[in-house]
Amino acid sequence: MSTGTEAPLNGVRCLVVGAGGFLGRALSASLCERGAVVQGYGRLPEDDAARDHRVAWTNAPFSDYPALARAVEDQEIVFHLLGSSIPESSNSDPAEDLLANVFSTIKLLDLCRAAHVRKVVFASSGGTVYGIPAVVPTPETAPTDPISAYGISKLAVEKYLALYHHLHGLDYHILRIANPYGPGQSPLKKQGVVASILYRAITGKSFEIWGTGEVTRDFIHVDDVSAAFIHAAHYAGEQRIMNVGSGHGLTINQVVGDVQHVLGLTGVRVTRKPGRAADVPVSILDTELIRTATSWRPRVSWIEGLTQTAVWMRHVLAT
Amino acid sequence: MSTGTEAPLNGVRCLVVGAGGFLGRALSASLCERGAVVQGYGRLPEDDAARDHRVAWTNAPFSDYPALARAVEDQEIVFHLLGSSIPESSNSDPAEDLLANVFSTIKLLDLCRAAHVRKVVFASSGGTVYGIPAVVPTPETAPTDPISAYGISKLAVEKYLALYHHLHGLDYHILRIANPYGPGQSPLKKQGVVASILYRAITGKSFEIWGTGEVTRDFIHVDDVSAAFIHAAHYAGEQRIMNVGSGHGLTINQVVGDVQHVLGLTGVRVTRKPGRAADVPVSILDTELIRTATSWRPRVSWIEGLTQTAVWMRHVLAT
Repeated sequence: MSTGTEAPLNGVRCLVVGAGGFLGRALSASLCERGAVVQGYGRLPEDDAARDHRVAWTNAPFSDYPALARAVEDQEIVFHLLGSSIPESSNSDPAEDLLANVFSTIKLLDLCRAAHVRKVVFASSGGTVYGIPAVVPTPETAPTDPISAYGISKLAVEKYLALYHHLHGLDYHILRIANPYGPGQSPLKKQGVVASILYRAITGKSFEIWGTGEVTRDFIHVDDVSAAFIHAAHYAGEQRIMNVGSGHGLTINQVVGDVQHVLGLTGVRVTRKPGRAADVPVSILDTELIRTATSWRPRVSWIEGLTQTAVWMRHVLAT
Repeated sequence: MSTGTEAPLNGVRCLVVGAGGFLGRALSASLCERGAVVQGYGRLPEDDAARDHRVAWTNAPFSDYPALARAVEDQEIVFHLLGSSIPESSNSDPAEDLLANVFSTIKLLDLCRAAHVRKVVFASSGGTVYGIPAVVPTPETAPTDPISAYGISKLAVEKYLALYHHLHGLDYHILRIANPYGPGQSPLKKQGVVASILYRAITGKSFEIWGTGEVTRDFIHVDDVSAAFIHAAHYAGEQRIMNVGSGHGLTINQVVGDVQHVLGLTGVRVTRKPGRAADVPVSILDTELIRTATSWRPRVSWIEGLTQTAVWMRHVLAT
């Protein structure tokens, strides 16, 4: 059924909503390489050099529905990766988070339906929709009790996708993605702990750890996430929600240790801060389902991916 | 732990959001009878005779946040029963439904938090949050996959209540209520199939059945629903979400038959229409949890409740 990541997408018209973000840029490049005709929507990367000139751009906010309608027109597959918040900040104004993410996504689904889009692939959050996990590694069937407004918004969008399929036959797949890392991730945003630690270690700055550092996360390389989206584009089976992660957990303290090892440094400086209410203690995804349903596997091992990311970041910082 | 429905609420300040609705009016009366100081919020009943003059009223829409803030001030328990849609209509504009119900509820929770409200009790929907049920009777732990925007809105509010408890310690209980019926339910609204069938049978009008009439529902008398809210007000145990239903199912065709029997009529006229996408085929709630956690039991049997409702409706129609 699945034709894998090697299969071409020659001439397939794809819209990437959130194409200026870390995952959006990697996915757009990956789609272009497979011959897809890619339209990007969202905020352009600030650095024009980071822009992929094979991608046609709509530089508009998510809430500009006329612009969004024009971007959706004639598209076959819509990848929705746009999120305007992170778990911690979402909790300071859940109502605003709902508007920015859920309300706008319903508008997007209305447009997809009107434009007869063939399929929507949504980037959900494996690290937040489950909340404090009842089972580790966590399968897709586990209870979903988010402890952040960010996670509730992702979960609500999942439910609206199922509703639009039920009511209108709009096809969809949902990827619940673990913690992505890799080249291209900005170290200056509040999301992306690997990029942040690498950056601070390389530049000799102190890294802030919230809580004990024993919080455990499932890190997945950006190329493996892009590959999962490509698999979802080709996939025609019955699974609607699939976890995308390495299936392994690392504590933040372990990441700090591995960063030191990879960089050949000692004594990365760490500042300890109180734990944050939006952080679940552990998030490791059970990825049996996507491995069974498709031929997707994570291809980039942790140390290999971390080393490659360190090389990239040293290069960026040197130029 | 539970002190039951007989316990007084002398002087306890209670806000009923949605106090003008069918359940809201019954609950407000029940709270007044137990000595509570009741503030009602929402649209006043159109018929002033239907208004309970023991209840202090704020006649304002849910989205009037300054009025809502004044109503929440100094309240100890907030009962949230306000819903501005029904399953079928919610599907015609899910984005609007989200704004009217979820966005406004988050604003209400922000106000409850600021006002140091002791507890919020929320009227969720046992008939829609589960979607097409995986298990019948359906326990609280069953998957929640709504097939209406109405159900998604109720489910999202449940998640925000859990979030506000996690982040801010705001206490809450959620009642997932089956299909309520009884005296006071308008037969002229699109919700309330028992009232509608009774009204049409008494007045000799044809009753519209969507689909085969074999759709099964769990009917619970309004007095039993009010009692469940009173139990939730007293309850201090660890259960957060409890089903409230009779635990038994009746098809719409059975209801039509029972209405004929109770009224002593034959040949209630029925018009058959196509089934509706928002209607789940069956909804029967497993009520083991609330029966174990509290002393609540449904007290009004179906035929007794239906007979009493028929007497009430004949009286209303005669005056």
